[in-house]
Amino acid sequence: MRPLLLVSAGIALGAAAPAKMPTPGDIVANAPASAWKPIPPDDVLIMELKNGGRVVIQLAPDFAPVHVANIRALARSDYWKDATVYRVQDNYVAQWGNNESEKPWPAGVTAKPPAEYTRPLKGLRVKSLGSPDPYAPAAGFVNGWPVAYSAKAGWANLAHCYGSVGVGRDLSPDTGTGGELYAVIGHSPRHLDRNIAVVGRVIEGMENLSSLPRGTEALGFYKDKAQYVPIANVRLEALPGAAQASTYEYLDTQSSSFAQYLRVRANRKDDFYIRPAGGVDLCNVNVPVRRRPGR
Amino acid sequence: MRPLLLVSAGIALGAAAPAKMPTPGDIVANAPASAWKPIPPDDVLIMELKNGGRVVIQLAPDFAPVHVANIRALARSDYWKDATVYRVQDNYVAQWGNNESEKPWPAGVTAKPPAEYTRPLKGLRVKSLGSPDPYAPAAGFVNGWPVAYSAKAGWANLAHCYGSVGVGRDLSPDTGTGGELYAVIGHSPRHLDRNIAVVGRVIEGMENLSSLPRGTEALGFYKDKAQYVPIANVRLEALPGAAQASTYEYLDTQSSSFAQYLRVRANRKDDFYIRPAGGVDLCNVNVPVRRRPGR
Repeated sequence: MRPLLLVSAGIALGAAAPAKMPTPGDIVANAPASAWKPIPPDDVLIMELKNGGRVVIQLAPDFAPVHVANIRALARSDYWKDATVYRVQDNYVAQWGNNESEKPWPAGVTAKPPAEYTRPLKGLRVKSLGSPDPYAPAAGFVNGWPVAYSAKAGWANLAHCYGSVGVGRDLSPDTGTGGELYAVIGHSPRHLDRNIAVVGRVIEGMENLSSLPRGTEALGFYKDKAQYVPIANVRLEALPGAAQASTYEYLDTQSSSFAQYLRVRANRKDDFYIRPAGGVDLCNVNVPVRRRPGR
Repeated sequence: MRPLLLVSAGIALGAAAPAKMPTPGDIVANAPASAWKPIPPDDVLIMELKNGGRVVIQLAPDFAPVHVANIRALARSDYWKDATVYRVQDNYVAQWGNNESEKPWPAGVTAKPPAEYTRPLKGLRVKSLGSPDPYAPAAGFVNGWPVAYSAKAGWANLAHCYGSVGVGRDLSPDTGTGGELYAVIGHSPRHLDRNIAVVGRVIEGMENLSSLPRGTEALGFYKDKAQYVPIANVRLEALPGAAQASTYEYLDTQSSSFAQYLRVRANRKDDFYIRPAGGVDLCNVNVPVRRRPGR
């Protein structure tokens, strides 16, 4: 008995073999260098856990500039010194911060940021998803990010997908500062779109959050403080004052490689798949992100 | 600083408080006993892991009868004696079975089942999702199950949602027997719909699969056999020859409570949510399942 094959590897075509439709992995592997865009080190937040786990987050300053400025200021301060992951709710979120402590905000933090839940669509170049979206008039991709938008009303929002990072907040009109963050660890909770500030996404080490034990209290909070997962440090990849090359890059969502990737994601037909869906949902596309060659 | 509140508790309305829209949790808590349907013990598969974790799966004989008959026959045999969870791929699946061993099939197992990827729509009473579905002409709920369907072509399929259990298989036309199973532990991989037999869903103990360490080999296979998670036993809740009451029940998807639940899932507006989406995707609805009162 053989194991379930859910992804087929790249296929070497012999003379007698029929032509196969490429897999998404084939397209990513064959994308030219010009199809990849670097992620600036100032947009890369690195969180190290005391258990050795490392979580790398790409920030989205084009969508939540005040919250991202806060997160950068916090990363340059000692705010995260005693912070922990204190809530892990199955099929929902892992959340970290200084849970209910009244730690003062360091310099440079806006205590009451505006509600950066949407931004103007104007100025954004969107690659359309090409499938209907239940949560918004339309959906697509902007600079590597999954977005929902309304062309008529002129707004766009970052979508809550698996791995998306958002800003914990109390009841409205509070918008949170960025001192409590969460990552989505289950089916994408798109009902949070336009109700919470999404500030980024996990691009490496997601398993260090998603495989944490689930909390047994309401909403997945850990019952005992002994269960809290201590954070060793949170910092930006960019070093102050130093020029630094990017470690990470994403597949340009305006590239023809991405267009092909999207088409295949919506129409899987290779050795494993026999019935293409003819459509795909926004959060099932997973914009490829990788380390730059040699990094 | 207060933690992120993503679900508000039931709200006691005082004389001066404005009326609030109920949360999904309010609706479930207030659903009458008549809105709940028992899950027959013969449809309940219990998998106990040697680490103490217990995973309860509801089987779907109306959608994959031959595969479910196989799974019941396997549960009554010693097939699972040396089985393990041997693959955990982040944002995809946890998979268990006798990975690549050539263990013979016990009596009652159909070695080459038909492709039970869809079934006739005829005979099914569907509660419509009411939102567009990117993967099929329409989506909704049948007897508590999330389904996609085509009224025109006359088929319906169980959807691959978080917690869905499917049958591992090799390349087509193999359909798998039921001796290798997987559960979805990430964003719902709906592109698998109509390409694999879905046979059930996890209704309790999902965290015992979703929080397992991720495998580091390709496709999330564990590298060393020492990492395999041994299965203690797999059995049906129903005892042979004995009448037994149901332990679990689901919210009848034809009930007015479910209709209200679905409406609120698509239009969250309570103390926490300020902008209802006006839509919801199939796998973000989560049909409520619980233990029957007193069980």
